[in-house]
Amino acid sequence: MSGEFGRIARYFAPLAGAAGLGLADDAAVLAPPPGRELVLTVDQMLEGVHFLSADDPALVARKLLRRNLSDLAAMGAAPLGYLLTTALPRTLPESWLARFVEGLAEDQALYGLALMGGDSSSSIGGIALSATLIGTVLPGQALRRNGARAGDEIWVTGTIGDAALGLQARLGQGEAAPALVARSLLPQPRVGLALAGIASAAIDVSDGLVQDVGHIARESGLLAVIEAAAVPGAEGDLETRLTGGDDYELALAVPPGRETALRAACGAVTVTRIGCLRQGEGVQVLSESGVPMRFTSLGWQHFS
Amino acid sequence: MSGEFGRIARYFAPLAGAAGLGLADDAAVLAPPPGRELVLTVDQMLEGVHFLSADDPALVARKLLRRNLSDLAAMGAAPLGYLLTTALPRTLPESWLARFVEGLAEDQALYGLALMGGDSSSSIGGIALSATLIGTVLPGQALRRNGARAGDEIWVTGTIGDAALGLQARLGQGEAAPALVARSLLPQPRVGLALAGIASAAIDVSDGLVQDVGHIARESGLLAVIEAAAVPGAEGDLETRLTGGDDYELALAVPPGRETALRAACGAVTVTRIGCLRQGEGVQVLSESGVPMRFTSLGWQHFS
Repeated sequence: MSGEFGRIARYFAPLAGAAGLGLADDAAVLAPPPGRELVLTVDQMLEGVHFLSADDPALVARKLLRRNLSDLAAMGAAPLGYLLTTALPRTLPESWLARFVEGLAEDQALYGLALMGGDSSSSIGGIALSATLIGTVLPGQALRRNGARAGDEIWVTGTIGDAALGLQARLGQGEAAPALVARSLLPQPRVGLALAGIASAAIDVSDGLVQDVGHIARESGLLAVIEAAAVPGAEGDLETRLTGGDDYELALAVPPGRETALRAACGAVTVTRIGCLRQGEGVQVLSESGVPMRFTSLGWQHFS
Repeated sequence: MSGEFGRIARYFAPLAGAAGLGLADDAAVLAPPPGRELVLTVDQMLEGVHFLSADDPALVARKLLRRNLSDLAAMGAAPLGYLLTTALPRTLPESWLARFVEGLAEDQALYGLALMGGDSSSSIGGIALSATLIGTVLPGQALRRNGARAGDEIWVTGTIGDAALGLQARLGQGEAAPALVARSLLPQPRVGLALAGIASAAIDVSDGLVQDVGHIARESGLLAVIEAAAVPGAEGDLETRLTGGDDYELALAVPPGRETALRAACGAVTVTRIGCLRQGEGVQVLSESGVPMRFTSLGWQHFS
């Protein structure tokens, strides 16, 4: 075997789980876990748009999986497996692929994922990647964006804005601690938190806190009020932190009185109350003195 | 709403089925049909690799779905829904997207598909598309490539090589009837054939007949013998026809004595016996006088 099939056999077949049938067939066959619903999501990563050409291919692979894992986490789903597409320039050294596959293998082990299938192509542009993640959730327990009620509190996991500050430093715009740079290269998706029955709505913060909390507000028909000073994270420009994206934390709507249950569900993952949901519409960010702030951009939009 | 979210709401949300949750969430939620296994496949289409920039966007959309439907057909699976990724240059006119979505809608209706989710991005290269198709099959009834036995016959649906001859004409290399050109633009995936219990192995012919039958031979540990004169299709260069790709027909291994059942299962879709499987390995193509033929290329490989 040579060319495409040799590469699949050499690099990808060792990653395949039972559903992948050794990557020897036209499609994967998955016996759905009994008594579970399936949760499905797909994200792309494109060279020059979502990662830089010089980035470590292993980190690109892991970020590709983790961006999707973060979407599963936002739905309260446990990951099961994935399908992968790669479009690689013919001039790309094989070492890039070898290192990319190392990253996949590392995060497959870490998150209990198996490769189920995929598609390889040559590319006449840059590197283009996508992963379709499959997870499971108990019936009716998937977290949605539209479940918040007026009076619910807004909470976030971890810290917000670190990745955006890290990316600025990588692009030569200012300095940032190595931990922030690392954060922009390799997110920590919040899978495994038992939020069903605690959060009324959830989203993963991938396009900027203000915009993503705005999705909960819009889908729930409410106004979100964020207290800027309450948002946990590194020191840095507030607009960058609150609109910069790539956090891969969860923003949650939580009915009042559930703080203890929420903290217990999140275990070692810190959670911070940053605001509340009220009658109205949109997102308001309040300064420390309670004045609504204005930002020039709400967050990352791929088309704007 | 503007930009990315406006486009999703305007163009894609109307295509979404129940599992897609109005495309308002981080992921789709699918209650698997009881008593079925899921079949999952993904294929990409890249501008300049899999389609030409001038191609009708509606045909690009439909070919994207149909290439994946053909993979489901090869597994004997019934289609259910799909996830979509689009990476579009910022300079692409919105009319391209509008027409692309028309094509999706047309084939969704034709094949009973629903959009479940997706990801939109800008592209700094050409247009990049992928679709992840989800289908279902009765437990244990998925057709595989590795089930053939020595003595099985090789059958193909429809005609082989028409699309390759049509593509040559589109590229200005010779002439071809309009029907062949149309065939290269819009395949007819062979979904819905009740082949379980009849075919011992199956594959869809997407990369060229010789290469794809070779996959059945390799996975089943056998030699495939194809009689060139028996392969149905339009007049044209034999090597182009047998190695050219884009047929999206099915090649089947069928134990002897099942012709009547096979024809009944295929209904209006013609099937033709083109060879057999024997002890040995590889693929042999025999000329009309029974002499093994040699081709310079076995078929399409994206990496070679």
